[in-house]
Amino acid sequence: MAPKTGKDYIASLKKLNLKTHIQGKETSDLAEHPLVAPSRRAIAATFDCAYDESTRDLFRVRSSLTGDEINRFTHLHQSTDDLIAKVRMQRHCGNLTACCFQRCVGMDAANAVFSVTYECDAAHGTDYHRRFRDFWARVQSDDLVVDGAMTDPKGDRGKRPSEQRDPDLYLRVVDRRQDGIVVRGAKLHQTGMLNSHEIIVMPTMAMRPGEEPWAVCFAVPTDTEGIRYIYGRQTSDTRKLEQPLLDVGNPRFGGQEVMTVFDDVFVPNERVFLNGEVDQSGKLVERFAAYHRQSYGGCKPGVGDVLIGATALIARMNGVESAGHIREKLIEMIHLNETLYAGGIACSALGHPTAAGNYEIDLLLANVCKLNVTRFPYEIARMAVDIAGGLLGTMPYAKDLDDPVTGPYIRKYLAAAEGTDVVDRMRVLRFIENIVAGAGAVAYLIESVHGAGPPAAQRIMIGRQGDIEGKIGLAKRLLDIS
Amino acid sequence: MAPKTGKDYIASLKKLNLKTHIQGKETSDLAEHPLVAPSRRAIAATFDCAYDESTRDLFRVRSSLTGDEINRFTHLHQSTDDLIAKVRMQRHCGNLTACCFQRCVGMDAANAVFSVTYECDAAHGTDYHRRFRDFWARVQSDDLVVDGAMTDPKGDRGKRPSEQRDPDLYLRVVDRRQDGIVVRGAKLHQTGMLNSHEIIVMPTMAMRPGEEPWAVCFAVPTDTEGIRYIYGRQTSDTRKLEQPLLDVGNPRFGGQEVMTVFDDVFVPNERVFLNGEVDQSGKLVERFAAYHRQSYGGCKPGVGDVLIGATALIARMNGVESAGHIREKLIEMIHLNETLYAGGIACSALGHPTAAGNYEIDLLLANVCKLNVTRFPYEIARMAVDIAGGLLGTMPYAKDLDDPVTGPYIRKYLAAAEGTDVVDRMRVLRFIENIVAGAGAVAYLIESVHGAGPPAAQRIMIGRQGDIEGKIGLAKRLLDIS
Amino acid sequence: MAPKTGKDYIASLKKLNLKTHIQGKETSDLAEHPLVAPSRRAIAATFDCAYDESTRDLFRVRSSLTGDEINRFTHLHQSTDDLIAKVRMQRHCGNLTACCFQRCVGMDAANAVFSVTYECDAAHGTDYHRRFRDFWARVQSDDLVVDGAMTDPKGDRGKRPSEQRDPDLYLRVVDRRQDGIVVRGAKLHQTGMLNSHEIIVMPTMAMRPGEEPWAVCFAVPTDTEGIRYIYGRQTSDTRKLEQPLLDVGNPRFGGQEVMTVFDDVFVPNERVFLNGEVDQSGKLVERFAAYHRQSYGGCKPGVGDVLIGATALIARMNGVESAGHIREKLIEMIHLNETLYAGGIACSALGHPTAAGNYEIDLLLANVCKLNVTRFPYEIARMAVDIAGGLLGTMPYAKDLDDPVTGPYIRKYLAAAEGTDVVDRMRVLRFIENIVAGAGAVAYLIESVHGAGPPAAQRIMIGRQGDIEGKIGLAKRLLDIS
Amino acid sequence: MAPKTGKDYIASLKKLNLKTHIQGKETSDLAEHPLVAPSRRAIAATFDCAYDESTRDLFRVRSSLTGDEINRFTHLHQSTDDLIAKVRMQRHCGNLTACCFQRCVGMDAANAVFSVTYECDAAHGTDYHRRFRDFWARVQSDDLVVDGAMTDPKGDRGKRPSEQRDPDLYLRVVDRRQDGIVVRGAKLHQTGMLNSHEIIVMPTMAMRPGEEPWAVCFAVPTDTEGIRYIYGRQTSDTRKLEQPLLDVGNPRFGGQEVMTVFDDVFVPNERVFLNGEVDQSGKLVERFAAYHRQSYGGCKPGVGDVLIGATALIARMNGVESAGHIREKLIEMIHLNETLYAGGIACSALGHPTAAGNYEIDLLLANVCKLNVTRFPYEIARMAVDIAGGLLGTMPYAKDLDDPVTGPYIRKYLAAAEGTDVVDRMRVLRFIENIVAGAGAVAYLIESVHGAGPPAAQRIMIGRQGDIEGKIGLAKRLLDIS
Repeated sequence: MAPKTGKDYIASLKKLNLKTHIQGKETSDLAEHPLVAPSRRAIAATFDCAYDESTRDLFRVRSSLTGDEINRFTHLHQSTDDLIAKVRMQRHCGNLTACCFQRCVGMDAANAVFSVTYECDAAHGTDYHRRFRDFWARVQSDDLVVDGAMTDPKGDRGKRPSEQRDPDLYLRVVDRRQDGIVVRGAKLHQTGMLNSHEIIVMPTMAMRPGEEPWAVCFAVPTDTEGIRYIYGRQTSDTRKLEQPLLDVGNPRFGGQEVMTVFDDVFVPNERVFLNGEVDQSGKLVERFAAYHRQSYGGCKPGVGDVLIGATALIARMNGVESAGHIREKLIEMIHLNETLYAGGIACSALGHPTAAGNYEIDLLLANVCKLNVTRFPYEIARMAVDIAGGLLGTMPYAKDLDDPVTGPYIRKYLAAAEGTDVVDRMRVLRFIENIVAGAGAVAYLIESVHGAGPPAAQRIMIGRQGDIEGKIGLAKRLLDIS
Repeated sequence: MAPKTGKDYIASLKKLNLKTHIQGKETSDLAEHPLVAPSRRAIAATFDCAYDESTRDLFRVRSSLTGDEINRFTHLHQSTDDLIAKVRMQRHCGNLTACCFQRCVGMDAANAVFSVTYECDAAHGTDYHRRFRDFWARVQSDDLVVDGAMTDPKGDRGKRPSEQRDPDLYLRVVDRRQDGIVVRGAKLHQTGMLNSHEIIVMPTMAMRPGEEPWAVCFAVPTDTEGIRYIYGRQTSDTRKLEQPLLDVGNPRFGGQEVMTVFDDVFVPNERVFLNGEVDQSGKLVERFAAYHRQSYGGCKPGVGDVLIGATALIARMNGVESAGHIREKLIEMIHLNETLYAGGIACSALGHPTAAGNYEIDLLLANVCKLNVTRFPYEIARMAVDIAGGLLGTMPYAKDLDDPVTGPYIRKYLAAAEGTDVVDRMRVLRFIENIVAGAGAVAYLIESVHGAGPPAAQRIMIGRQGDIEGKIGLAKRLLDIS
Repeated sequence: MAPKTGKDYIASLKKLNLKTHIQGKETSDLAEHPLVAPSRRAIAATFDCAYDESTRDLFRVRSSLTGDEINRFTHLHQSTDDLIAKVRMQRHCGNLTACCFQRCVGMDAANAVFSVTYECDAAHGTDYHRRFRDFWARVQSDDLVVDGAMTDPKGDRGKRPSEQRDPDLYLRVVDRRQDGIVVRGAKLHQTGMLNSHEIIVMPTMAMRPGEEPWAVCFAVPTDTEGIRYIYGRQTSDTRKLEQPLLDVGNPRFGGQEVMTVFDDVFVPNERVFLNGEVDQSGKLVERFAAYHRQSYGGCKPGVGDVLIGATALIARMNGVESAGHIREKLIEMIHLNETLYAGGIACSALGHPTAAGNYEIDLLLANVCKLNVTRFPYEIARMAVDIAGGLLGTMPYAKDLDDPVTGPYIRKYLAAAEGTDVVDRMRVLRFIENIVAGAGAVAYLIESVHGAGPPAAQRIMIGRQGDIEGKIGLAKRLLDIS
Repeated sequence: MAPKTGKDYIASLKKLNLKTHIQGKETSDLAEHPLVAPSRRAIAATFDCAYDESTRDLFRVRSSLTGDEINRFTHLHQSTDDLIAKVRMQRHCGNLTACCFQRCVGMDAANAVFSVTYECDAAHGTDYHRRFRDFWARVQSDDLVVDGAMTDPKGDRGKRPSEQRDPDLYLRVVDRRQDGIVVRGAKLHQTGMLNSHEIIVMPTMAMRPGEEPWAVCFAVPTDTEGIRYIYGRQTSDTRKLEQPLLDVGNPRFGGQEVMTVFDDVFVPNERVFLNGEVDQSGKLVERFAAYHRQSYGGCKPGVGDVLIGATALIARMNGVESAGHIREKLIEMIHLNETLYAGGIACSALGHPTAAGNYEIDLLLANVCKLNVTRFPYEIARMAVDIAGGLLGTMPYAKDLDDPVTGPYIRKYLAAAEGTDVVDRMRVLRFIENIVAGAGAVAYLIESVHGAGPPAAQRIMIGRQGDIEGKIGLAKRLLDIS
C-alpha cells in the first residue's frame, strides 16, 4: 500500500473509538474537537511531506521488511545515512509545525523493540522478534501512527514497583491466560496517543529478578477495551477555544498530552513482545531512550529555527534588526540551536548495526545530544523574550482589536517600523509567546527537559558510556603510571 | 493619617471610575472582576504588613516630609539603612504573594522625581520640587498607591520621537495652556495601574534639544478624563475565570498589565514636574530605572523563595528529596536566588545622598543587580521544571477530579510518597507551572527580562558607570606605562 | 605604637629566622630572594596605604581592644560599616598589586577565634578568650602580619583523622605538658606564611568526640623551633629569576605558597585557644571560612579591575577598542566582576554582632559570594584571552628584544595602533598572561576555586543556611497546604 | 614511497637548516633542543600511528592523486567518511600526546587550496590547481609535514593593509619577477613551523580590489633563504630545561609557537597558488578556517579525554572518587567534551563535494563546533581544578623530593589513599597543572580561543551561514504573513 496522505490519515482516525475525557467530560467526537485538531494536523504534515516534491525523497524509503516504499516514520533504520535522514526529517517537520509532531516515539520504540526482541529470543528461546516483525510489517504497509508508551506514574520514586502501596503504579501483568495477558496500570505524558492507531507499551525502567510482572512489552490498538484517556492541560490551552484565533499563537498546529489508563486490558499473545524477561528490560529502556534522545536533536532545532525566524522578524518590525546586540543574540540563538542539531547528527553518523540488523545510534552522543536539549532551549527562549520586548506579556486581547473604541488605539499605538502591519506584528508576538510561555512551551521547554527522560537519566548514561576507566588509562599511559 | 489596612485600600479603590476594556468589552465593575481581584489582593498585602506584628517595624517609617509614621512604600529614603529596608520589605512581599505586588514603581518614581526636580529647579529656576513635595506629602498622608509610567510605545525603535510617522508614539505635550498642559500618547506595560490612585508619568528616554514636547513629567489621578485602559492578556489568564480554581496555580494572588492611553488629558500646572527641560530627562530616566533595578533585587528573590520551597516540597512528595542531584539543584537555585538578593543589598549599602537629601543607590551595582535578574530566573525555572517532572505539562484538568470515572483514576495514579495528598500534590505542581510557564511567568520570566528596562539598557549603564578609563589607569600604573 | 610603614614591615622581617627550603635547597636570606620579594612588596602595600593620603582613612581604625589607631588589617570588626570597609580596603589592595596581598587570612582568623573562644569559655569554663585578646592586642600594637593556617594534608579524604594510616595527616596534639602542648602535622597552601610574624593554627574541619587531639587552635611565631617551610612552585615562577623582567608580567608584585611542617612544635599554654573542645571546632571552621569567603568579594574584584583595565588597554593598542563585540565583552567582564563585589558587600551589610561583640558577616551570603568567585574569574579570564589575542601564547622572549637580528623584527611586526609603544604592548600582554595563565593565575584562578574552601564546601553551607524548610513553609502557606 | 615512521620523520628534520632564534640567541641544533624536542615527538606520533596495528587502518588511506597508500594527514578528503575519519584520527592523536600535534594545519590548508585553486583557474584562466596538485603529490609521496601559515601581524586592526603605517604588517608581494615573486611580511602563532618541511602561506583575510599584493598564496620549504623564526614563549616553558622533569607535567610531549619572518623571500612561479586574485582570497580564508575549525572538534576532545582521565585518577588517589559531586563534575566534563566532538563529527557527516572533487565540511556546523571549543575547555579546566585541589598551585618543586630534609616530609604529608604512590600523585597533579595553567594551557585554553580564528570570526560566519532570511520565511509561512 502506498504511503498515506494527510487527508487519508485524518480519515483513518474517524474509525477509532477512543474513550477520552477532556475538561471534565467524556468526549466522543475528537475529530472536531478544537483542542485536539491542531495536534492531528501536525501529524498529518508527516504524511503530506511524503507527497511534497521537495521532501518526498527524504520522507520515503524502502522497507527492510517488505521491500515496499514506506513513510520513513515507520522505517527500521538500515544505515547511518538512515539515522541522519531521520534527524533531517524531524528538523523539517519542526520547521513546518513549530510543535511536537508526535510520530517519532513509535518509530523509536519500534527500532528498539526490533533489536531487543531479537536478542531476547536468542537468550530465552522466545518468539518475540517474529511477532514484532509481523506486527510492524502491518504498521508499515498500512502507514499507521504508533504511540510508544513508557512512563509509569511511579508513585514514591524512592521505592521499587513491588514496594509501592499500590503495585499498579507501575504498569504490570495482573493475569496470564492461555491466549494472552491482562495488564493494569497507566502511562503518563503520552503526546501522540489520541492521534495514534496503535500503542507499543514498554517498561519504564530496568526491572530486576522478582519484578517479572512489570517487565512487559506489547502492542494494542488505541481503542482496545479497557483503555481510557484523560486529557492533560497545557499553558494557555483554552485559547484554542476562543475566537478570533490570533491569541493562540500557532495558528494551525499544536500539541497535547494524555494520561492513559489500562484498566485490565487483554493483550493476545501474538502482540506480546516481552513478558517477564527482566534481563532485557533495562536494555529496552536504554535503547528506546537513546533513539528518542537522538530525535530531540532534530525536532527541537526544527522548532528553534521558527522561533529564531520569528525573533528576527519582530526585530525587523521593531526597527532594530541591525543593532549590534540584536544581531549578536540572534547569532547566539543559532549557535545554540545548531549545537543541538550537531548532537543529533553526530550520534547518527557514528551509529552501528545491532545483532538484529537495524542501526542504532551512538549511545553516548545521543545522551549528550539530549542533555544539551534540556538546557539550550531555555537560553534561546530567554533571548527571544529579550528581543521581542515586554509586549510579550502585556499585549491586549485579539478581541479588543474589533472594538470600535480600543481597536483604533491598539492600531495607533502598536504601530512599528514602516511597512509593518500591526496585526502581523501581533501575530508574531503571539507566536513567540506561544513557544516561550504558552502552549508551545510545554513542548519546547518542559518536554525538552523531561521527554525521553530527565537530565539525571542522561547523566547516568553519560557516566556509564563515557569510559572513565579508559580515560584514566590514557592518563596513566602518558604519565607512565602503572 | 495612619497607614491604611488592606481592607481600607480595597475600599478606597471603589471610588475610582476607571475606563477599562477587558477581553473586548468595557468593564465598569473592576472590584468584582476575577481577572483583576488577585492583583488587588497582592497590593492589599503591602498594607496589611504595616499592621502585622512580625513586619510592622519593617513596613512603617517616619516621613521626612511630615514626620508622621507612614507605610514604607511611600517613603523617600533617608539612609542606606532605608535602602536596605526597602529591599528586605520587597523580598517579604514576594514571599507572601509569589507575584508582582506592583507598588514599588510609584515609590521608585517618587524618589527619582524628588531629586531631579530639586536639581532642575536649581538649574532652571523652576518650581517643580515644591510642587512635587506637596503632591507626595498627600500621597504619604493618604497612603495612596501610585503607578509610575515610563514606557512609550516607541513605534520604529530606530527613530527619534519627531521622526516617527505618528509623533504620539512617544507621549507628548500637545497643548500648553495658562493653567496647565494637555498630553497625548500611551504608556505600555503598566502593571499596577488599575489598582492605583495616582499616576506619575515620566519620559521614556533622554530627550535632546528640539524634543521638548516629549520631555514631560506629571501626576494625575487614575480616573482623569481622557485616560483609557486596555487590559493585557497573560499566559493562562483565563484560568482565573474557571471553577474550581486549582488550575490557576497561585490561588490568591496574581498580576496584570494594561496599556494606558492618554487621549488629550489635561494636567494642571501644580501637577507638572518637568515640561521641556530636556537636559533633566535622561537623568530622570536613569535614576528611576536604577531605583527600580534595585527593586528587582528584592521582589524576584522573594518569588524565587516560594518557587524553591514549592520545588523542594514536590521533591519531598515524590520521594526524592534526599537524592544527591535533587539536593544539588536546590542548592544551586538558592545560590542564584541569593546572588540576585546580594545585588539588591549591595547597591543599597553603597548608596549615597542626593542634593535633595534623599538617598540614591549605587548606580553601577543597581544595574549589575538587574542584569543578573534578566538571567538567573530562567535557570531557576529550568531547575524547578527538572525537579517537578513532566506532570507540569501533562496533568489533567481540575475538573476531571470531580468526575466519577476519571476522579478515582487520577487519585490512584497521581498518588506519590506516603502522607502526600494527591490534590495537594496537584496544587504544588500547578503553582510551579504558574511561575515557570503560566500567568506568574509573565512577572517571573518576561518582566524579569524587561521590567525597569531590558538587558541592553543595563549594559549601557554598566559600560558608563564601570569606569573603564579608571581601570586602564590601574593597569598603566602597575606596568609603569605612561 | 603607630601603624608600621611598608619599610618598617620589610625591616621587621629581617629579624625572623625561618627554616625555608626553596627549589631543593635551604635558603637563609629570604629578604633578597627574587622569588620571595614580590610577595613581600605586596604585603608592604597594605602598610603604606595607612599613610597614603587617599586611603589613610579607610586603612586606619580605632582598636576595640586598646583604643589606639591601628591598621584595619588587624581590626576586630565593630559594625557592618567595618565589614564593608574591610571589603573596600581589599579591593583597593587588589587594585594596587594585582595579586594576593596575603594579609586577610590573619584578620579573618582573628575575628573567628575572637568570638569562638568567647563562646567556648562560656560553654567550657576555659580561659581562651582572655588569652586571645592579650595575644591580639600585641598584634595590633606591633602591627604584625599574621598567617591563618587551616588546611591539613588530609591523606585519604574518604577517612577521618584517626582512620588515616598516619594520624599526622591532620595536625594534632602529640603531647600535653604542664606548660603547654606539643603539636605535629602540616598545613598546606599557606600563602602569606613566609611574610608573617605569627601563625594562628586552626583545625581543618569539624571534629567529633574521640577526635580531641585534632581539635586544636593556637598561635606561634613563624620562626618557632620545629617549623619548616617548603616552598611551593607556581606556573611560570622562574621568570622572576630572569633578566629582563618583562616576561614576569606583574613587574613588582606576586604571590607564593608554602607547605608548613610542624615537627613536634611546643606551644605554651598562653598561646593555646582550643584544645580538645570538639564541639567548638566546626563553628571555628565555619566562621573563619565565612570571613574569608567575604574577603574574596573584595580582593578578587580588585585584581579583576586591573585585568579588565589591561584588557581594555590592549584593545585600544590593537585599534579595536570601539568594536561592538569588544565593548560587549568588556561590559560583561565588569558585570561579572561587580557581581563578585556585590556578594562581598551584601554579606557585610547584613552582618550581625556575635556574643563576643565583634561583627560577623551573613553566613549564607558570604558563601554565595565565594561560590561565584569559584566561577566568574574563569569567564573573565576567557574574555581577556579573547580580546588580547593569540600573542598571549606565542610572543617572543624579552631577551629577543635586545638581539640585533630579532629585536628590529619584533619591533616591526608587533607594532600596533599609532601611538602604541611596542614594548608597552608586550608589557600589557605579559601582564594579562600572568593573570590568566601565569604565576598570577595561581591566585586568580586556582585559589579562587580553592581558597577558603572549594565549591563543595560553599554548597554545603548554602544548603544548611538556605532555610529550605522555611521556603517550603512559604509555599505551603500560599497554597493552604498543612 | 611508503608512509614514514616517526623515526624517519625525526631523521628527515636534521637536513633542514632553519634560522631559529630561541631565548635571545640563534640556535642551530634544534634536534637536541629540549624546548623543541617534545613538540617533534608529538608530530612523530602521527607517523607511528600509521604503523601501530590498532590505528593503521585509520591513519592510512589511498591517495586520490597517486593511488598510493598515504598517511591520512596528507589526504585530500574524498567522502564524508574521510571527513569523519580525520576527526577520529585527531582525537586519537590528542589521546596520545595531550598536546597540539601540529600536523592538521597543513592538511587543512591543502584541502582548502585544492578547491580554491580549481575555482580560481575556472574564473581567471590561471594554472594554480595543476601546480598545487603537483606540489601536493610530492608532499604525499614524501610524507612531508607542512605548516599552513595564515595569521598576519595586522598592526592596527581598525585599518586595512594599505592603510597601515607599515604595509608589511600584512604579508605581501614586494616584487614580481619573470620566474616568481618576492614576498615580505611575517606570520604569527605558527605552531608546527619548526617541525615542518614545507609552508603553505595564505592571506589572512578577504582582500578587496586594490589589495592585490596581499592576495597571495604559495608554498616554500621551511629553510628557504630569507625566512627566520623567533621562538615564542609559553607559560612555564623553562621547566622543560629543568631536571628532574617531573614538574614539566607532560613528560614526553608539548607544543611551541614561532613568529615567522619573511624578509624578501623568493617564490618560484611553480609554487605560487594565488597572486592578486582578490575575489578568491576570502573564500580561501573561509574554507581553510572551516576545515581547521572542524579539526578542533577532534584534537581538543582528544586532549580533554586525558585531562578527564587524570582528573578521575586524582580523585581516586585522593579517596573521593565515589563522592556524588565529584561524579557529577566528571560527567559534566565528559558531556562538554563530547559536545565538542559532536560538532566535529556533525560538520563532517554533513559534508559535501567541492567542484574540485575533494570534500568540504558543512561550514555552519564547523563554525558552531569551534565556537564551543572557545568556551567549554575553560569550564572543563575549572572543574579539573576543582577536583584536583589546591595542591595544583602550591606543590613543592620536584627538586625538594631528593633533599634529605624535605623529601621525607613531602612523602609523609602528600600521602593519599592507600595504594597511591606519592610521586605518581605528584605526576598527575603536575600534568593537570600543565593543561589548565602550564605550557599545555597555551594549546588547551589560549589556542582553543584563537586557533583557526577567534570567537568573533566564528560568529560572523554563523551569522552568514545561519540563513536568517530562511528562518524568517519559516515563521512567515506558519503565520501566514506575506
